[in-house]
Amino acid sequence: MQTPYYLIDKANLRDNMEKIARLRALSGARCLLALKCFATWSVFDFMSEYMDGSTSSSLYEVRLGAEKFPGETHAYSVAYADHEIDEVLGHADKIIFNSIGQLDKFDTQSSGHIRGLRANPGVSTSEFDLADPARPFSRLGEHDPAAIDAVADRITGLMFHNNCENDSFERFDEMLTLIEDRFGAVLHKMDWISLGGGIHFTGADYPLDDLALRLKTFAERFGVQVYLEPGEAAITSAATLEVTVLDTMFNGKNLAIVDSSIEAHMLDLLIYREPAKIAPNTGDHEWMICGKSCLAGDIFGEFRFDAPLKAGDRLSFQDAAGYTMVKKNWFNGVKMPSIAIRELDGTTRLVRDFDYDDFAAALS
Amino acid sequence: MQTPYYLIDKANLRDNMEKIARLRALSGARCLLALKCFATWSVFDFMSEYMDGSTSSSLYEVRLGAEKFPGETHAYSVAYADHEIDEVLGHADKIIFNSIGQLDKFDTQSSGHIRGLRANPGVSTSEFDLADPARPFSRLGEHDPAAIDAVADRITGLMFHNNCENDSFERFDEMLTLIEDRFGAVLHKMDWISLGGGIHFTGADYPLDDLALRLKTFAERFGVQVYLEPGEAAITSAATLEVTVLDTMFNGKNLAIVDSSIEAHMLDLLIYREPAKIAPNTGDHEWMICGKSCLAGDIFGEFRFDAPLKAGDRLSFQDAAGYTMVKKNWFNGVKMPSIAIRELDGTTRLVRDFDYDDFAAALS
Repeated sequence: MQTPYYLIDKANLRDNMEKIARLRALSGARCLLALKCFATWSVFDFMSEYMDGSTSSSLYEVRLGAEKFPGETHAYSVAYADHEIDEVLGHADKIIFNSIGQLDKFDTQSSGHIRGLRANPGVSTSEFDLADPARPFSRLGEHDPAAIDAVADRITGLMFHNNCENDSFERFDEMLTLIEDRFGAVLHKMDWISLGGGIHFTGADYPLDDLALRLKTFAERFGVQVYLEPGEAAITSAATLEVTVLDTMFNGKNLAIVDSSIEAHMLDLLIYREPAKIAPNTGDHEWMICGKSCLAGDIFGEFRFDAPLKAGDRLSFQDAAGYTMVKKNWFNGVKMPSIAIRELDGTTRLVRDFDYDDFAAALS
Repeated sequence: MQTPYYLIDKANLRDNMEKIARLRALSGARCLLALKCFATWSVFDFMSEYMDGSTSSSLYEVRLGAEKFPGETHAYSVAYADHEIDEVLGHADKIIFNSIGQLDKFDTQSSGHIRGLRANPGVSTSEFDLADPARPFSRLGEHDPAAIDAVADRITGLMFHNNCENDSFERFDEMLTLIEDRFGAVLHKMDWISLGGGIHFTGADYPLDDLALRLKTFAERFGVQVYLEPGEAAITSAATLEVTVLDTMFNGKNLAIVDSSIEAHMLDLLIYREPAKIAPNTGDHEWMICGKSCLAGDIFGEFRFDAPLKAGDRLSFQDAAGYTMVKKNWFNGVKMPSIAIRELDGTTRLVRDFDYDDFAAALS
């Protein structure tokens, strides 16, 4: 198969899915895939065997979830437009508004539906200000428990989403306690609570049983159905980006240019100024792996290899499932990576290829 | 027309085009549009009345240039793949290799074509390390004049691209002198020299005549045809991003959420951590304008208005032509902005709309 392509590995995906299924069984919590992180719908049927459905951040995502991901479909968006709301409601089992303003605005249209509101507890685990829902002046959710209480009769649930790649159960526990203390009165009035995504509970050493017990206790204390909305946790390590070295140079360091680009194909590496991952990243030869776009800083990172790289060598960037395919773009007209799936029996099949016509049609 | 949409204003575009035409007439330099910055081909015929053609950074871009932009077509890429080179050569009037390695690799296939090489003078004007072609360990072009001289019999031109939004003629002049001093011997052997893009010569106070004279003197001294490859300079102020306020909140500041997203629709604001532009940005009311994606830092900036904002208000982000449409993506499934053109007679026509099917087809 011609590079570049994203390769989704169902066996690795299944490892995460089995942990999610275990958490659901132990805790009673329901788990919905966050499409904002991963929306490659060819594997939705497979994932739906282990998960309860999907959650969304826009009209198009909620429709994709409704059409492609069996199970429950949650609708959330920072803001819906007037012309979107009826279609959103048609696709959603629940709708979660970001503000009381939006709840008021769409009160009549949504009155026959299960409704919720996003609450912002004012604390988070994000190490990046950019991704911190609790940042100063945050627009993400309502902050005031009293204001939420005043509309409690019009909603049956709340959504908190303040974790971000949080791999510490203790930190999660602390923050949930804070939510209990601060929002306890209104929590008792709700039927369901979503605790959002960003809990890295599929990580190797995560105390899954402790998390399950904590969620179960929370659910029982307030008499609510708990939801989690895993994104990264559901698909961590489930895909690679497969590339080929096109050219090598030496300019103070060994440089290898591959047929991909961080900006076009793994955008978060650029946005968060983080390196890609290559395994095993050992050996005597250190190389800087660069993208082929015109951007001077289009650099995947510096990695170690057993032998010098040369044109034609194949490389795999690890952990290429989350926030990659959903953000890919046509910068520089660099060939958009195909999407392929490695099935459980080891065979690999191409599910989507992109060509010049796709590029030209992205503009006008 | 329903927001969001990019609105290309041909009258503003014409202002830039006329400056380009003037520069060409005064200097003898040829000007090629850099498609990496702007590739909205509906206005290529119009632009081609004032420009000599287009230049590219990939196979798909060179094909777009060859098919849609009348005139000369330059091919450049940081690296071409084996399976691309014949098609690239079929579309290009000139091919510029990034390295001697690529020139060697494709020597036979490209021998009947006009060939050039990218040279890196080791200095630049970029204020961003990310965008600085002269950054340490840069992979962009060959640095050593002696190495370039050794292949001078196989090429007829060189490309230097070390300016980046450079609005200082003095700085450009200094850097060109440095290029003359450092690469003079090999420049004399060439037929054509591209000085790349990044010269902000369409800016209001730019001394266009001084630039023209400098280019003419350079061309005469070395006996070369000079090329420029304007991107931003060609389309500065030529488009806006039109959006609508969907919701307002107060959380320490006045917040307005619009039906767009910096990450999805004006990506460079996020990458370079810069604010959008709104005109006139005066008045007693200060508002933070936020995008509707889930990203906490999806913020266009803080701007001043004559009255408080409310849902339904229309806003225009200025300077939305360069590096916007070419990088737009489906993050969060946020509706991708349509593309519209305001003709010289003031009428506006929609040239491209994007819908759910485009979103679903971007994945698989």
